[in-house]
Amino acid sequence: MDIYIKLLEDITKRESVSFISSITKDGYPKTRAMLLPVKREDNVFWYHTNTSSQKVQQFRDNPKACIYFCDPASYTGIVFIGTMEVLEDQETKDRFWKDGYTMYYSKGATDPDFCVLKFTAQEGDYYGNFSVTKFEM
Amino acid sequence: MDIYIKLLEDITKRESVSFISSITKDGYPKTRAMLLPVKREDNVFWYHTNTSSQKVQQFRDNPKACIYFCDPASYTGIVFIGTMEVLEDQETKDRFWKDGYTMYYSKGATDPDFCVLKFTAQEGDYYGNFSVTKFEM
Repeated sequence: MDIYIKLLEDITKRESVSFISSITKDGYPKTRAMLLPVKREDNVFWYHTNTSSQKVQQFRDNPKACIYFCDPASYTGIVFIGTMEVLEDQETKDRFWKDGYTMYYSKGATDPDFCVLKFTAQEGDYYGNFSVTKFEM
Repeated sequence: MDIYIKLLEDITKRESVSFISSITKDGYPKTRAMLLPVKREDNVFWYHTNTSSQKVQQFRDNPKACIYFCDPASYTGIVFIGTMEVLEDQETKDRFWKDGYTMYYSKGATDPDFCVLKFTAQEGDYYGNFSVTKFEM
C-alpha cells in the first residue's frame, strides 16, 4: 500500500480538491468536489461538511463511497473504494474543529450543521502510464 | 435546462476533463477522469473508450451513472445523473471515429477495443455560490 500513499501524496501536493461519490436513494452514483481531506491516517481519511447536505443523507442511507484524487496534467489518478461514516459526537467535532470554520458553521464546534466524515478505504485503483493497477489496503 | 447548459459550457471552456462514475458489482461508486465528451446534443453526451476497460463492464452490468464537470478555482460544478449505454455497432463507431484515435485503438474504427459511450442525463445538480440547485433535463 505504501507506494500508493506516496503516489497519492504526489497528487495532493499539486491539487486542491478531491472528488467524493455517494449512492443516491435511486441507486445512482453522485460525485462532487470537496477540498482535500483534513486528515489521513493509513487508510482512513477525514473531511468536514454540512450535516444538512445531500451527501450526508446519502451516506447515512448507504455508506458505500469512493474518493478520487486526480492530476489531469500528468494523467494520473487514484480512487479509493470504501465506506463513509457520518460522525456527530462532540468529542470528534472538537477534535477536528478549527477557528476558521466559522465561515462554514457559524455556531462553532457545537453547530449541529457541522459534522465529520470518516472514510475507510478497502481497496483502490491507480491510474497512470495509461494503465490501471488495482491494490488492496 | 438551458441555463445549466450555459453554465456547463462555461466550465468546459476552462477545463480539459470530466469525471465519470459507475457502480461496481459490489455496489460501490467508482469515479475516474476522462477527457471531455467528444459530442453533446441536448441532454445526451458521447465519449469513446476501450471496450476492455472496467467501466464498460460496470456500465453493462448497471447503466446507472453520473458525469461531473468542475472548475475548482471558482467553486463551481455540475453533475448530471442518468444512464450510460455502451455502443459497439459499426455505424456508431464509424460516426465517431477520428484518425488520431489510432494512438488508443491501433486497429482503427473496426478495432473491437474501440467503443462509444452514450450518456443520457435525466437530472442534475449545479454547485455554485456555495449552494446546490437541482434541475431536471
